[in-house]
Amino acid sequence: MNRSINVTIWNEYRHEKTNEKVASIYPEGMHKAIADGLAVTGTVRTATLDEPEHGLTDDVLASTDVLVWWGHMAHDEVNDEIVERVRQRVLRGMGLIVLHSGHFSKIFKKLMGTSCDLKWREADEKERIWIVNPGHPIADGLGEYIELPHEEMYGEHFDIPQPDELVMVSWFEGGEVFRSGCCYTRGMGRIFYFRPGHETYPTYFNPEIRKVINNAVQWTAPVDREYPRYGHAQPLETIKGIQA
Amino acid sequence: MNRSINVTIWNEYRHEKTNEKVASIYPEGMHKAIADGLAVTGTVRTATLDEPEHGLTDDVLASTDVLVWWGHMAHDEVNDEIVERVRQRVLRGMGLIVLHSGHFSKIFKKLMGTSCDLKWREADEKERIWIVNPGHPIADGLGEYIELPHEEMYGEHFDIPQPDELVMVSWFEGGEVFRSGCCYTRGMGRIFYFRPGHETYPTYFNPEIRKVINNAVQWTAPVDREYPRYGHAQPLETIKGIQA
Amino acid sequence: MNRSINVTIWNEYRHEKTNEKVASIYPEGMHKAIADGLAVTGTVRTATLDEPEHGLTDDVLASTDVLVWWGHMAHDEVNDEIVERVRQRVLRGMGLIVLHSGHFSKIFKKLMGTSCDLKWREADEKERIWIVNPGHPIADGLGEYIELPHEEMYGEHFDIPQPDELVMVSWFEGGEVFRSGCCYTRGMGRIFYFRPGHETYPTYFNPEIRKVINNAVQWTAPVDREYPRYGHAQPLETIKGIQA
Amino acid sequence: MNRSINVTIWNEYRHEKTNEKVASIYPEGMHKAIADGLAVTGTVRTATLDEPEHGLTDDVLASTDVLVWWGHMAHDEVNDEIVERVRQRVLRGMGLIVLHSGHFSKIFKKLMGTSCDLKWREADEKERIWIVNPGHPIADGLGEYIELPHEEMYGEHFDIPQPDELVMVSWFEGGEVFRSGCCYTRGMGRIFYFRPGHETYPTYFNPEIRKVINNAVQWTAPVDREYPRYGHAQPLETIKGIQA
Repeated sequence: MNRSINVTIWNEYRHEKTNEKVASIYPEGMHKAIADGLAVTGTVRTATLDEPEHGLTDDVLASTDVLVWWGHMAHDEVNDEIVERVRQRVLRGMGLIVLHSGHFSKIFKKLMGTSCDLKWREADEKERIWIVNPGHPIADGLGEYIELPHEEMYGEHFDIPQPDELVMVSWFEGGEVFRSGCCYTRGMGRIFYFRPGHETYPTYFNPEIRKVINNAVQWTAPVDREYPRYGHAQPLETIKGIQA
Repeated sequence: MNRSINVTIWNEYRHEKTNEKVASIYPEGMHKAIADGLAVTGTVRTATLDEPEHGLTDDVLASTDVLVWWGHMAHDEVNDEIVERVRQRVLRGMGLIVLHSGHFSKIFKKLMGTSCDLKWREADEKERIWIVNPGHPIADGLGEYIELPHEEMYGEHFDIPQPDELVMVSWFEGGEVFRSGCCYTRGMGRIFYFRPGHETYPTYFNPEIRKVINNAVQWTAPVDREYPRYGHAQPLETIKGIQA
Repeated sequence: MNRSINVTIWNEYRHEKTNEKVASIYPEGMHKAIADGLAVTGTVRTATLDEPEHGLTDDVLASTDVLVWWGHMAHDEVNDEIVERVRQRVLRGMGLIVLHSGHFSKIFKKLMGTSCDLKWREADEKERIWIVNPGHPIADGLGEYIELPHEEMYGEHFDIPQPDELVMVSWFEGGEVFRSGCCYTRGMGRIFYFRPGHETYPTYFNPEIRKVINNAVQWTAPVDREYPRYGHAQPLETIKGIQA
Repeated sequence: MNRSINVTIWNEYRHEKTNEKVASIYPEGMHKAIADGLAVTGTVRTATLDEPEHGLTDDVLASTDVLVWWGHMAHDEVNDEIVERVRQRVLRGMGLIVLHSGHFSKIFKKLMGTSCDLKWREADEKERIWIVNPGHPIADGLGEYIELPHEEMYGEHFDIPQPDELVMVSWFEGGEVFRSGCCYTRGMGRIFYFRPGHETYPTYFNPEIRKVINNAVQWTAPVDREYPRYGHAQPLETIKGIQA
């Protein structure tokens, strides 16, 4: 597929500046690694927390088809008005891909309505991400599972609304499972939550993980249609003498 | 069924005090009519906007299995802290039945994550609520449809997440359709949105409408289990020398 | 989008030969009108009931990405082995678009598992197909609804499994509603049921109806991946001395 | 809850007669162990493959609210007419609980429309069944997971339609995951697939497994309403001079 899709990758970009291990894996930031993995014909831009308006100005969002979100230690520093600005864009059709610890971001929690809480553990353990919906576009080109030798564990119960479509379920060495690839539509916007990507592992260089993110960009890209009209409506048919 | 279920009916209770037509239909308030229609073995209480804490104290909520919500003209006057208090209860298992104009209540919007907007028209028109999931417990004891001779119209697009289960779809004389009976689970709580019930019609005296609300009380009643544990977790299996 | 997609349009092609009104609307068959409305970069072929193997040989199906199905008066004449052949292709990823009276085709009933029964009436009545999921790819480029001045009525209850995604709901002049645009995944195959298209109306010349079918071709087109492996499996991890 | 529900437990009942290990665990048959675990106020009956009409006469089915199904080595010996008889009952509201290897039964495959295939392995491995929908009635009274020290492995991809509600996901020691507790509605009937229960393990004596089956009996029990009317319908509203 070669639709032109404009992607903006938002990264908190803090761990990379303060943690040597993270900096050694992602010297230019996780957003750079994610951007390098994208194969789209439109633009690929990045934005980070410490830029003015977190890099998410009205202009940037207006020209964004799909927004990718990675955040972790500074969710609370994201300005509520900007969160609402992003949410309004999603409801109007902008795609949103929420990665890993973004499960606790303000934008994801606000769109889901639940706590988005989960179990976690950092123990360098093996993760195997099984495809449970092999006909889904986000599973295009993948094998039966993606194996990551070392990742942070996320375990159920994951407090999310039941996904409209569940594409992936993870197995963890330490004994847990997790719904790792979850599709939603909210308003006109499509949302994909994708679990892997702890900052201390080179997950976003993995070709299969990159393939998933590329597929998700295609899947979340907006349709071309007007926002619905809401509010007071004239009848379309005649009712008791009210002219339609 | 005769599980003991404690129900609290929350009503804004403003139209009844200021509008003669509404007062003549619901002289003791819409909450009273809804309460009179319930057939449960537990308690039935009511609470209204102008009571202290809107009648929704911690104690009241702690002893509520299912909360029914009707609001319209004063959504904005509902205190945000109390909205969050209700939401936390829902996530922990309290059932929530949102009626008619409650689609725009803070609690429903916060749990859905979308705008919850829709089309509307007041034209005394006929509504026919078709059952599209006849095996669902909320359809128990009903015919193929419920016909209301006069109601306010609500039309699509209704900006809600796709329901986990869609039970009813309305036909309106003026030319619109609407997803009128929508089931959700959020956290451990079950939510049912039910469309009819404009304040200027005696809808909540209708035996079939009352049947639906009774069914929904049964369906949204909580299970008996602990809230999941979230946060840091020890491994259940041995990982690389970490003792499970 | 310009993925190359090979489409085969299957038509029963009986009404056109025996009914003057139908012949006057669709002189070359309904399949020809549907084919003329497609805008794909791959091949567009047609197949009909009275061809050998109904035109659905192994070779034809092997080179078909999306199969469109219209049948009505001769569902029973479709050979069971060919139905199973089509079903196996769907489970392996071939898209299937089932039109109108195809709701009672052997292939749709076999894939759904339910009776697929419904209410119907031929009364030249108005249909208005409302979009209830405006962000869905099948809603791309459409307005808020599609209005057809005259169509056969199909009414609820429609005995289908709850759609994975419900995109459209019809309003009918005579008082009924119908879930008109329904998305399913079965195996690796995606299925879209689309209601309109009675043989006595020129529905398949309508540009908006054609737009929906084009969108559905894109949506049902298969992913590029292997069929999952089933059956006996060796462990991936060591279990009690069994070497993984 | 104490609704009166009449349950019939169907068991293939072959392994118990030919395999010493199975006979030692289930000397009176698996159906007897499942029946002993039920706590319902209605009747509990059993039926087996080698009885006339497999024990599933019209009379038996007419007085059955919920049918439980266990089969494995002799799926093909189940008469097609009786399978269709059961399916018709399900579509008219009878609940169906399909256990373990019943995934490959004729009745389950016919209701699902897919191959219902999966991966499997007999290696005495540990299974941990995680609850992913803790507010669901089938999760009532359970902890966060059910642990079975030894079970047969079933692994993804499990070729089923996406469940209407997914309640449980299994973790297996050998590296796989599986959607183990799956809810469907087909026609008016509710269906629950529950994974565990290989014949060589005493799984149906496990109190938590028995709790799940009891919960599922409550959840699948039919509503009290008429079967919908299908076929030709008179208009409910006036259309162009046709009297409603």
